[in-house]
Amino acid sequence: MRTVIYPGSFDPLTNGHLDVIKRATKLFDHVIVAVAESSSKKPFFTLTERKRMLAGVVKDIPKVTATTFSGLLVDFAEKKKACAIIRGLRVVSDFEFEFQMALMNRRLKERIETVFMMPRGKYIYLSSNLVKEVARLGGEVSTFVPDPVEQALRKKLPAKRR
Amino acid sequence: MRTVIYPGSFDPLTNGHLDVIKRATKLFDHVIVAVAESSSKKPFFTLTERKRMLAGVVKDIPKVTATTFSGLLVDFAEKKKACAIIRGLRVVSDFEFEFQMALMNRRLKERIETVFMMPRGKYIYLSSNLVKEVARLGGEVSTFVPDPVEQALRKKLPAKRR
Amino acid sequence: MRTVIYPGSFDPLTNGHLDVIKRATKLFDHVIVAVAESSSKKPFFTLTERKRMLAGVVKDIPKVTATTFSGLLVDFAEKKKACAIIRGLRVVSDFEFEFQMALMNRRLKERIETVFMMPRGKYIYLSSNLVKEVARLGGEVSTFVPDPVEQALRKKLPAKRR
Amino acid sequence: MRTVIYPGSFDPLTNGHLDVIKRATKLFDHVIVAVAESSSKKPFFTLTERKRMLAGVVKDIPKVTATTFSGLLVDFAEKKKACAIIRGLRVVSDFEFEFQMALMNRRLKERIETVFMMPRGKYIYLSSNLVKEVARLGGEVSTFVPDPVEQALRKKLPAKRR
Amino acid sequence: MRTVIYPGSFDPLTNGHLDVIKRATKLFDHVIVAVAESSSKKPFFTLTERKRMLAGVVKDIPKVTATTFSGLLVDFAEKKKACAIIRGLRVVSDFEFEFQMALMNRRLKERIETVFMMPRGKYIYLSSNLVKEVARLGGEVSTFVPDPVEQALRKKLPAKRR
Amino acid sequence: MRTVIYPGSFDPLTNGHLDVIKRATKLFDHVIVAVAESSSKKPFFTLTERKRMLAGVVKDIPKVTATTFSGLLVDFAEKKKACAIIRGLRVVSDFEFEFQMALMNRRLKERIETVFMMPRGKYIYLSSNLVKEVARLGGEVSTFVPDPVEQALRKKLPAKRR
Repeated sequence: MRTVIYPGSFDPLTNGHLDVIKRATKLFDHVIVAVAESSSKKPFFTLTERKRMLAGVVKDIPKVTATTFSGLLVDFAEKKKACAIIRGLRVVSDFEFEFQMALMNRRLKERIETVFMMPRGKYIYLSSNLVKEVARLGGEVSTFVPDPVEQALRKKLPAKRR
Repeated sequence: MRTVIYPGSFDPLTNGHLDVIKRATKLFDHVIVAVAESSSKKPFFTLTERKRMLAGVVKDIPKVTATTFSGLLVDFAEKKKACAIIRGLRVVSDFEFEFQMALMNRRLKERIETVFMMPRGKYIYLSSNLVKEVARLGGEVSTFVPDPVEQALRKKLPAKRR
Repeated sequence: MRTVIYPGSFDPLTNGHLDVIKRATKLFDHVIVAVAESSSKKPFFTLTERKRMLAGVVKDIPKVTATTFSGLLVDFAEKKKACAIIRGLRVVSDFEFEFQMALMNRRLKERIETVFMMPRGKYIYLSSNLVKEVARLGGEVSTFVPDPVEQALRKKLPAKRR
Repeated sequence: MRTVIYPGSFDPLTNGHLDVIKRATKLFDHVIVAVAESSSKKPFFTLTERKRMLAGVVKDIPKVTATTFSGLLVDFAEKKKACAIIRGLRVVSDFEFEFQMALMNRRLKERIETVFMMPRGKYIYLSSNLVKEVARLGGEVSTFVPDPVEQALRKKLPAKRR
Repeated sequence: MRTVIYPGSFDPLTNGHLDVIKRATKLFDHVIVAVAESSSKKPFFTLTERKRMLAGVVKDIPKVTATTFSGLLVDFAEKKKACAIIRGLRVVSDFEFEFQMALMNRRLKERIETVFMMPRGKYIYLSSNLVKEVARLGGEVSTFVPDPVEQALRKKLPAKRR
Repeated sequence: MRTVIYPGSFDPLTNGHLDVIKRATKLFDHVIVAVAESSSKKPFFTLTERKRMLAGVVKDIPKVTATTFSGLLVDFAEKKKACAIIRGLRVVSDFEFEFQMALMNRRLKERIETVFMMPRGKYIYLSSNLVKEVARLGGEVSTFVPDPVEQALRKKLPAKRR
């Protein structure tokens, strides 16, 4: 059985992330979607909120597990006996950052591969930051995120903005 | 009559921005330069200061109006009956971010186009951040920004730095 | 009245080109789509074929004229009293090449602007070369090009490949 | 059992390609390395030579098969019941081209994924073209390509150059 | 005698920086490594700490001097009679930022050149930020930074994380 | 004494190349400008023509020598006892190609550095190919190339085009 990790801050999960998750289940036996504690930048949603949204969204997708992790990603991947880390690639700036991370992870733990997948064309320019920005300015985000995320955004943002 | 919006944080307006404004007036009938409230990052100049500097600079350029806006850019563009949003492109990293915004705006309001223009070659590597950095370190910025902006920078920065 | 030129080798015209043409008609009064003779690289379709396909496709789009040109683009633009050249931008590698051309054109004829527009998201990764490659390998290209172009490709490519 | 295709012109196979092949065998059950006939650009080695070099190199690597294909890659992948196409990513310019191909392939055959992997850091700037150029100028290429490829290059290039 | 400045925030110095320093000594007579006060972003290590780590690391490398500077880099370079500023280039995103800085510096002081050098291949994806992130998450950084830096990171980071 | 090599196909030399040559003389004692035989792509000007144009242009610049070379650049650099290869960087696509070459050259001959310099801002988008294209289409290239090159272009191109 081949297990892979799909890590991220998922702050919040978008339809682009969800698309990558589903694609990964076609290629591997078990996909662990893992929310990073991400101590270095302050998230909009708490770890608990992010984990709960994710769990709600993936609970009916076979082969997918939602969890959180702290510490080094490669240590977590090893503990879970994963053979690879999955990352979505959308744009050139992603590419360089992801390469840097992948090379670093390989240096830290040679055995674990990084595999890049591509979301649907229409999600290529979608990001968690852009979704938050649109929501904050009162825009409609229902086509960009799953329902539970849309509701969470609605609840979290000051009423006057919506 | 064709109206276009040239939005930005203009924190502060540079000669590169001014160059794009003038070029836009050659192609369209009315150019609304619109300072974004930009709630997500803390600006150096207040909204009022930015608006005032901009208004001072463009007041003698025919067909140009200076204003501010809050909320979604596409909603503002629609209210103003604009046919397009103008954006300046300078470098590759601009390009990807601007594409992401343009595709998002098109998703939010199909009718409104985004049109990219290019400032003069010598302004291609000029940015508001770089101008602020140079001014903060005591450098001469008079060739990078219009006079009212240079005076505002001088006034705002601690005397000892200059 | 504002005239713009949309130049290209159109070897062949794709749905991405067509999308840019239609968007340009919303912003300007007259769009001249101009097939370049392109002496430096050998085209797949002859100049006459490219011009005929283009003319067939745009004949019912108001405000659009199809033509060919030789010599410098800026000289042609000036002769047509155009205020701007329209170019589509899709990917980063486009961006750098187009910038180089636009700066050169500006150097050659200061008065003429270059304006960049963005095709629909789903056409962002579409190119004439890719369409020809798919057609040559026997693939279906009907969703990538207008009908007259598909028929021309079918006719031009050796029967055995299709 | 999960089969993947690793396509390429392999003109010639480099150590970077070989590294990607080995990495892919850790994640999938069967890796079909497929030499493209590549009708559009004239290769340096013939299809037969490229196939033979590849077969010689991978014959002792478990789970790997070497073959050739013509026509559309996605048709070949479907015939082989492959779930994914593997591609190596090295630099930004690769990235854009590969994305374009991957989106096109997805459009042609929705079911087949494209998965990107990264060769070892030291192979990131290695390419078939560069290897041929160095060999042509009389340089030593033994650290860049497997032995059978080095011998083939030596044989193929005019004696005077070496 | 030709003096060059190698400026940076060195927060902290990595083996990639050290590699560039050594390469520069092969081409120039005196290399002044200069820690920027960097008032605009809050550093992890204080200016004193950064200066001390750097001085410890370069003290036995001939032709190298460690110092700090405030104000404009070009003013500092002129005071030191330097003919050039040295910068390391690793990835595309570096490239654009560095170009912007180099063009701005040339505008501010025409006489001073900027010269770009490339660290060893294996350091190309190494950055101070990534090193801090790995150290913060409890990873081993001894292959990425000189000994004094590793010790400083160990001391500075909360015991529980390590 | 420090010697550097500035290699290129110089087909033809542009003002951008000339600018890099002059900048290099400020940093090094001897600059050998070396025209590559470039067997892999067919040049517009013959090796002799390119060498003659270059020699004519640099003959009055102190510290500069013009020559040609065949074989590997690093072998030539070693024979000339050069400490570094100089390359101009203009745009992102240059950057990746140049990095690839520089890493390969370092692999082939560890001792020889590659140093990147930046031409004047106004030459950043200038290339030999673009100059030839403009000249071929009858455009004025006198601001892009030195006089001897302009004359050579005029002579070489069919009268009817000019």
